[in-house]
Amino acid sequence: MARPPTVPDNERDMSYGIVTEQITRFETELRLESGRILGPIEIAYETYGTLNEARSNAILVTHAWTGNAHLAGRYSEEEKRAGWWDEIVGPGKLLDTERYFVICSNVIGSCFGSTGPTSINPKTGKRYNLTFPVITVRDMVSAQALLMDRLGIERLFCVLGGSMGGMQALEWATQLPDRVASAVILAATPRPSAQAISLNAVARWAIFNDPNWKKGEYRKNPKDGLALARGIGHITFLSDESMTAKFDRRFSARDGQFDFFGQFEVERYLNYNGYNFVDRFDANSFLYLAKALDLYDVSSGCESMDEAFAPVSAKLQFFAFSSDWLYPPPQTEEMVASLERLDKQVEYHLITSSYGHDSFLLEHETFTPLVQAFLDKVRF
Amino acid sequence: MARPPTVPDNERDMSYGIVTEQITRFETELRLESGRILGPIEIAYETYGTLNEARSNAILVTHAWTGNAHLAGRYSEEEKRAGWWDEIVGPGKLLDTERYFVICSNVIGSCFGSTGPTSINPKTGKRYNLTFPVITVRDMVSAQALLMDRLGIERLFCVLGGSMGGMQALEWATQLPDRVASAVILAATPRPSAQAISLNAVARWAIFNDPNWKKGEYRKNPKDGLALARGIGHITFLSDESMTAKFDRRFSARDGQFDFFGQFEVERYLNYNGYNFVDRFDANSFLYLAKALDLYDVSSGCESMDEAFAPVSAKLQFFAFSSDWLYPPPQTEEMVASLERLDKQVEYHLITSSYGHDSFLLEHETFTPLVQAFLDKVRF
Repeated sequence: MARPPTVPDNERDMSYGIVTEQITRFETELRLESGRILGPIEIAYETYGTLNEARSNAILVTHAWTGNAHLAGRYSEEEKRAGWWDEIVGPGKLLDTERYFVICSNVIGSCFGSTGPTSINPKTGKRYNLTFPVITVRDMVSAQALLMDRLGIERLFCVLGGSMGGMQALEWATQLPDRVASAVILAATPRPSAQAISLNAVARWAIFNDPNWKKGEYRKNPKDGLALARGIGHITFLSDESMTAKFDRRFSARDGQFDFFGQFEVERYLNYNGYNFVDRFDANSFLYLAKALDLYDVSSGCESMDEAFAPVSAKLQFFAFSSDWLYPPPQTEEMVASLERLDKQVEYHLITSSYGHDSFLLEHETFTPLVQAFLDKVRF
Repeated sequence: MARPPTVPDNERDMSYGIVTEQITRFETELRLESGRILGPIEIAYETYGTLNEARSNAILVTHAWTGNAHLAGRYSEEEKRAGWWDEIVGPGKLLDTERYFVICSNVIGSCFGSTGPTSINPKTGKRYNLTFPVITVRDMVSAQALLMDRLGIERLFCVLGGSMGGMQALEWATQLPDRVASAVILAATPRPSAQAISLNAVARWAIFNDPNWKKGEYRKNPKDGLALARGIGHITFLSDESMTAKFDRRFSARDGQFDFFGQFEVERYLNYNGYNFVDRFDANSFLYLAKALDLYDVSSGCESMDEAFAPVSAKLQFFAFSSDWLYPPPQTEEMVASLERLDKQVEYHLITSSYGHDSFLLEHETFTPLVQAFLDKVRF
């Protein structure tokens, strides 16, 4: 019998196909929310589908904390896994690439091609490390706007994202209201709560504690601290229910229950995933983006949430997930209530799901038809 | 004007007064649940009030993770703070020392006078450190039973405790049913869930990551790792609601919001308390007790919870707290349902409180009258 292909044929058929990452450089300096200046900057991005003549079919997908521009498709036939949200992008999929021009760019501050703490500061010839300025979600969106200018996109048909991606969609709708016709916001929050901040705080602390972090001046990622930080984050992305379903209280078959270093299955899983993460994400980027998450407040610079939402002209669709304890549904509902008070075009769906905050990545079947119907109603 | 006294007069009047910690040594070796042997062992304890002639008025209060035997009163007039649960123990208080003989002992595995990893192993003349055997809550109770034998107490009027203290009360009721007339169990669980285990797992990991931990062979507490471990634990003891009430998203007045090392108030608080904790608790003890918590299962060795509760003869009173997300109310309710199926004498109260798991220490006014009424019904 022939060996099965690495990628199942049916999946390959549905996928966008081969994509190329592009990196574009802006000589312009970006004035950050902090007042500091960042530049020149580079932005890594990918596009799928074709921009129509009216330039009216562009959808920007905004990624979460540790995401990147590789939204869908494969860089080569050999690449085992397609982009991170391949399930919803491609011909005939939710973000139908026969119809839309889909863009995904890596946020500034990250480590996947866009300017961040691992980049070389052109003024010094050295890596920024901690000389990189603190950035905010608003700054990420300012950088994305430069990219849209360059692509000749005056107005986006839609911005869609979950978690930190949802925060970016909110910033597009509130800060650049003329440039976006609609936004889909999943598993986001108007501002993380004290508990959410405290969980990021202990994740930061784990990195600060690692002597290999060297105040950001490491050559090799400080693996123990970063793996632990990721382990803490991982807990916040899941739910007690999903962890119980997957691991319950099972003890690792390799360990004795009464061994001092014996591990529960859930413990081993967090450990294993934490150390895997070290190979693909930079510790300083992790810290800068954690900070951006904690600082996020849709009402920043305004007296109230209503004031923040007043300029919105886009149609907005919100999704919250019942088991998301990091950004729980009432936080989304607070935004929806504000938008309803302001008579904005807003739609809200509470999805019952056991997967916690990560539901937005795992439960796409539940929201796909709803987003589909929403996009069909958007008139450019 | 005269300076106010260190302890307010009204508080002093209500307090038990001066107490002395006692340490007693058992040459007997304890067979642990793991099959390993521990001994000789020492147990640190305090008593309040007088044992009556019938030896029928003894109440054992069992402490939580980082607690100790210093339940109430003061070691000297100068001691600023009374024992950890002074609010409920003393003349005229819930555990009325004019009526009851109240005992509190430090659990084995801890670092406050009872045998634990910081103790000298008499066989080697060195600190146990990681040669200390993994112990369970059941083992803690076996050691307490030795103490009761020595004090001449055949049967306890009541065992009362919260969190890990509640687990000990459960073990008394299920493993030594003839030796306890009643038990009050607050903020406990029949077994921690996968999420609760995972939060302890990352706390352990924080200590393991600290190079000063040296696989348990440190001379000085590994402060960065232990402080972080405590910080993680601290989050689980509180609730989002109580953290929001206390800190919300306030940024430390000392820091700039856009400083890389700038802290939110809640972050500073966790940091400050974490480093304070290092001065009063041993890292290895923290690890051994975290393990005991995770391993806890009231049904251990039984086919079902009903089988575990079948031998119970004591009257049981349970309290759960609405905002406790570490050991959430449904976990207590599962025990209550099992006991009701078995026609045991059981009483349950769900207390509405915003203080999270720590509610049991902070909300004593809410449960005091209910425990009072319960104890009044207990016939020895």
